[in-house]
Amino acid sequence: MTQQASGKELIYVKEGHKHTSPIPQGVKAGGFIFLSAVRGVETGSTRPVADTEQQARLLFENIRRALEAAGSSLDRVVKIGVYMINLQRDRPIFNAVWKEYFGDAPPARFAVQVLDMGGAGDDSKFLADVTALA
Amino acid sequence: MTQQASGKELIYVKEGHKHTSPIPQGVKAGGFIFLSAVRGVETGSTRPVADTEQQARLLFENIRRALEAAGSSLDRVVKIGVYMINLQRDRPIFNAVWKEYFGDAPPARFAVQVLDMGGAGDDSKFLADVTALA
Amino acid sequence: MTQQASGKELIYVKEGHKHTSPIPQGVKAGGFIFLSAVRGVETGSTRPVADTEQQARLLFENIRRALEAAGSSLDRVVKIGVYMINLQRDRPIFNAVWKEYFGDAPPARFAVQVLDMGGAGDDSKFLADVTALA
Repeated sequence: MTQQASGKELIYVKEGHKHTSPIPQGVKAGGFIFLSAVRGVETGSTRPVADTEQQARLLFENIRRALEAAGSSLDRVVKIGVYMINLQRDRPIFNAVWKEYFGDAPPARFAVQVLDMGGAGDDSKFLADVTALA
Repeated sequence: MTQQASGKELIYVKEGHKHTSPIPQGVKAGGFIFLSAVRGVETGSTRPVADTEQQARLLFENIRRALEAAGSSLDRVVKIGVYMINLQRDRPIFNAVWKEYFGDAPPARFAVQVLDMGGAGDDSKFLADVTALA
Repeated sequence: MTQQASGKELIYVKEGHKHTSPIPQGVKAGGFIFLSAVRGVETGSTRPVADTEQQARLLFENIRRALEAAGSSLDRVVKIGVYMINLQRDRPIFNAVWKEYFGDAPPARFAVQVLDMGGAGDDSKFLADVTALA
């Protein structure tokens, strides 16, 4: 992490999700961690894997990696906004993986269907906007 | 509310909005309350009511109920993201009800139109992502 | 700014973005500032300018104006949600302006494509949901 004079720390992680846009993996500030768009990509790739369940699983792995790199953890996630390309088709799969990762202590959440996310034609099915306690 | 070792409290309310997905009605953490997707549903239902104005009204009632259950209140809402199925048609109706509930002290807000939200074919017109002071 | 008994301050700015809906330009509460939907509009207008790059530039100017009016600044932005009408076409233009304004200390960010935002037929290409340290 790089400490800024402004009071925020930028989070850059070696493993996990990367972005083609000029943004960090997250920011720590004011007692919270705000992660940039988390998707189901392998380390070093900006394209999600093809399988829907595996894409969901990688998304949660990437949330975990980024939070742990910043000294936090999955159980400290307080809020997730989930953007999906096909809400009714893919939400049951997402929920099954969600339960594995969050168990009895899930964060607050909303989910909506949008038209596009991620790179051009990269088959992103999920994008997560994550807020956690630092 | 159930206190977690992680520092967050899960908010479950008897009256108000319910979810079919495995999520609480909200989370209290770090001085804030984050509510899960609030919609215009009657207590005990996961399907919104048909009338647009009544759907907006129930949405605000459900925000109020969840916040009061967690020891906060409507006037402590600081930010709302509003997702609509038909922004230009339904926003004037939403704004009229918004004014009744927030009066001279509204929160910050943005509103965008998305493709889907809520359950399959359940006629959700509004979904609110709410952040309040605890 | 107007201090509320609830613990939040409403931010109203003379220069910058305005809203036709009954909302302030932002709210300061709990150590953070939450701005209402920021778009690429000239002061006094609720319709964005036509040119895409100029629309992005005005959006950042309006973020800066609102934050400075509230005693904060651009380098204290911790998170931006970006809603676009055409993500793949307009994101490169947005990113170029983003780099000018944020340089080496960008906030966390996600971007998704939605169906509508702003006023009816007003050619909004970008809408930003901004969180900053107070």
